[in-house]
Amino acid sequence: MTLSRLYFIISFILFAASISGHKLYTPTLSLQRKNFLQDPERAVSASVSNDFETFFFNQTLDHFNYRPESYTTFRQRYLINSKYWGSANSSAPIFVYLGAEAPIDGDLIGIGFLTDNAAQFEALLVYIEHRYYGESIPLGMSFEEALKDANVRGYFSSAQTLADYAAIILHVKQNLKARDSPVIVVGGSYGGMLASWFRLKYPHVTLGALASSAPILYFDDITPQDAYYWVVTKDFKEASETCYQAIVDSWSEIDRVAQEPKGTANLSKMFKTCKPLKSGDELKDYLMSLYAGAAQYDDPARNPVTVICNGIDGANATENGVLGKIFAGVVAYHVNSPCYVNPPTNVSETDLGWGWQSCSEMVMPIGITNNSMFPSYPFVLSSFIDECNSSYGVVPRPHWVTTYYGGHDIELILLRFGSNIIFSNGLRDPYSSGGVLKNISDSIIAVYTEKGSHCLDIHAQKQTDPDWLVMQRKTEIEIIKGWLTTYYADLLAFKQ
Amino acid sequence: MTLSRLYFIISFILFAASISGHKLYTPTLSLQRKNFLQDPERAVSASVSNDFETFFFNQTLDHFNYRPESYTTFRQRYLINSKYWGSANSSAPIFVYLGAEAPIDGDLIGIGFLTDNAAQFEALLVYIEHRYYGESIPLGMSFEEALKDANVRGYFSSAQTLADYAAIILHVKQNLKARDSPVIVVGGSYGGMLASWFRLKYPHVTLGALASSAPILYFDDITPQDAYYWVVTKDFKEASETCYQAIVDSWSEIDRVAQEPKGTANLSKMFKTCKPLKSGDELKDYLMSLYAGAAQYDDPARNPVTVICNGIDGANATENGVLGKIFAGVVAYHVNSPCYVNPPTNVSETDLGWGWQSCSEMVMPIGITNNSMFPSYPFVLSSFIDECNSSYGVVPRPHWVTTYYGGHDIELILLRFGSNIIFSNGLRDPYSSGGVLKNISDSIIAVYTEKGSHCLDIHAQKQTDPDWLVMQRKTEIEIIKGWLTTYYADLLAFKQ
Repeated sequence: MTLSRLYFIISFILFAASISGHKLYTPTLSLQRKNFLQDPERAVSASVSNDFETFFFNQTLDHFNYRPESYTTFRQRYLINSKYWGSANSSAPIFVYLGAEAPIDGDLIGIGFLTDNAAQFEALLVYIEHRYYGESIPLGMSFEEALKDANVRGYFSSAQTLADYAAIILHVKQNLKARDSPVIVVGGSYGGMLASWFRLKYPHVTLGALASSAPILYFDDITPQDAYYWVVTKDFKEASETCYQAIVDSWSEIDRVAQEPKGTANLSKMFKTCKPLKSGDELKDYLMSLYAGAAQYDDPARNPVTVICNGIDGANATENGVLGKIFAGVVAYHVNSPCYVNPPTNVSETDLGWGWQSCSEMVMPIGITNNSMFPSYPFVLSSFIDECNSSYGVVPRPHWVTTYYGGHDIELILLRFGSNIIFSNGLRDPYSSGGVLKNISDSIIAVYTEKGSHCLDIHAQKQTDPDWLVMQRKTEIEIIKGWLTTYYADLLAFKQ
Repeated sequence: MTLSRLYFIISFILFAASISGHKLYTPTLSLQRKNFLQDPERAVSASVSNDFETFFFNQTLDHFNYRPESYTTFRQRYLINSKYWGSANSSAPIFVYLGAEAPIDGDLIGIGFLTDNAAQFEALLVYIEHRYYGESIPLGMSFEEALKDANVRGYFSSAQTLADYAAIILHVKQNLKARDSPVIVVGGSYGGMLASWFRLKYPHVTLGALASSAPILYFDDITPQDAYYWVVTKDFKEASETCYQAIVDSWSEIDRVAQEPKGTANLSKMFKTCKPLKSGDELKDYLMSLYAGAAQYDDPARNPVTVICNGIDGANATENGVLGKIFAGVVAYHVNSPCYVNPPTNVSETDLGWGWQSCSEMVMPIGITNNSMFPSYPFVLSSFIDECNSSYGVVPRPHWVTTYYGGHDIELILLRFGSNIIFSNGLRDPYSSGGVLKNISDSIIAVYTEKGSHCLDIHAQKQTDPDWLVMQRKTEIEIIKGWLTTYYADLLAFKQ
């Protein structure tokens, strides 16, 4: 497996819009989608989307320059649910979900945190789609056309996106004459990073941010590159020591079989692949994404890590050796699948979009060195840059995120600067290793759960949610209530 | 006088690089330059510039996009004085002067605040030139060429400029291995706005900002448009009620004479103009800029407002009526001038550059409605936009500054967000009307003087400085010392 393959597996598959669990790339996430659709509670909540009205904002293509082309505008989609809103007169709050690397549609239901809490806050809900995704693509182009054009995709950046959000939020507030209504932004994963950065860059537009599973410290040299896979390994080891050991042993066994005459064909047969494997690496890629995805989305309702390990541990080892065990893990995860490993898939907007974003500015140096159950694949920046350059004709800017948003010495920097950010995490999520896990100040707070995974807290609540998840959300709500109470007191004092 | 003429008079002449007093547009500022050069104390301090070493940084043209053209780089000039620096080992501080709308050269001596205080802080001094000025012009072009090309001048924006500063400061710190050295940024006027915005946008790059005479609230609808000229009027009225009244009476008299046969020629003769006047408006333009400039730069060593009023009040009114008085004010100001009103001048980089900046994003709605000694010239946004559009082919973005940097409800917003900004002002400076004049929090502080004018505090200290100016600087130094003390204590705690 080449470096970039490892990187893109992680970037595309794991980081991708897992949040709402519906725009997915690999079997890992497809399973989530299946579960998602079959979930009767979710099916009921689908009616929620009827409460949203769709709008389009005439957005500036390029906020930061004044070239003639900068003034081009495009239609950016946002949706409003005013069912629960108090009113502008009472300065009732506005909850804004900041769209991430996918069309916004699925998030209306998937990101239930806002809707679940709208009534008690009398909050207006606004969901804004990220530029270049869904129906928010510049220049009347299709997503593919926009991504193919080097000039057009060049405006697809996080700073432009935050400025989009500021413009739309100010527009909505002006339209509603809701100048004093406080805004709380919510985002998850990449969107969580955007939420925390938005509070830091636009404090005059938002009072506070809930940044769920936002690995804002997984840039530059802040977090060790192997932290992500170290957490995946820990999750599996905690689930089962023998499962972990089988996975450790499997990689060299795949290599060994692949090198035999007809080895790749034998592996294809052994894993009942949907198409013949091209190499042993293809199988290894798949398995790495399976394990990483299971760890990242280790939802307490399904516990995919445990499911896989139960499969592995329950297999009859004498029959097919360690690969038989591994295959049993695959089957346990993909119940009732007609074939495995490489089913037909479509390349999603998230795949393509995040591919570009990670090759331009979102350079997260995730690699595997040691301390893991995986083969070694160090992240080598120079190789990464070369590959991005050959794909896109431009080189990534690996230091831009830390230059523009910061990250180094964050505790020292934000101890006496900024306020009102919740960094929420679940420690089973490998991305939590790049998250903020310590309180930085009185109001820049880390709220994490030992058993949680990626972005659980901002998903819609369910009857079956474990107590620790219920408690995490409750803590977040109490913190936000505190921000609002303080704000209204300040507002009153200023109006007098 | 058209709207734009009023606007540009203010923008170019007054806002312009008054700070270092050497790149000037009108007689008002030429006089300052003359005084500047003749000042023996300043002449001595000219040796200061020998302590600076010049560097060029390979700067990114477009930080916010990833178009192929965005990756173009240009040489940006900065200068370092390390004579006083403690060392990286002792985490000695770094004072950075953020260049504004002029070449940086004159600021090395002119902005003496940094050099004057370097020894006691053991500070490294860095002066960075603003993109598109001086020797920091993209694409190997001359200033005029860059400003003429709609694509090239399109990258001439404040957000790009702040990102330039971040990149250079991080580069300097890395080179010196001075990661823990705290950075204090200093700027005046437009540069003061940049300094305060830089602390708000890049808290991870600078610990604090001294923003001298920064009218960050003179945007959008925050400050009444006639605030600037109201202060000019107040300054003159305080100096002399009869002087004020003569100025009030003069405008209609100029109009009356101009409408007579040979009226313009008579005005030219009466005011000993260097070239024949084209109209009465030309004279009015000049006088408005004279009075506004005198108020803005009402330096206690020269007191130009008093000088002019003494001229006006001392004239023999019976001889030439009110215009004779006005001319006596002009002569009192421009001692020993062979002619007046319209001497030959060169259009400076500041004139051209600020012309573009104010027509793209720095839209400061300064007008004259009432409450002033001037004729009425309301600022009409739609006319302003039309004029900019016809000059540059693009329309200004009058709401961008408040969208990106904020400004509305600043006391409410920054009460619990951000820290370590000094907003210094002198209340005789008409731009103080758009400045921050109240403490916002424990560490976002307003330090102003009743008698001060534009950017006095960051000029080099002089033996003749009045006590209130000495005290203002001392207060600023004490505040900065407080930031540093807190920072070093925090740093120690984090390193343990």
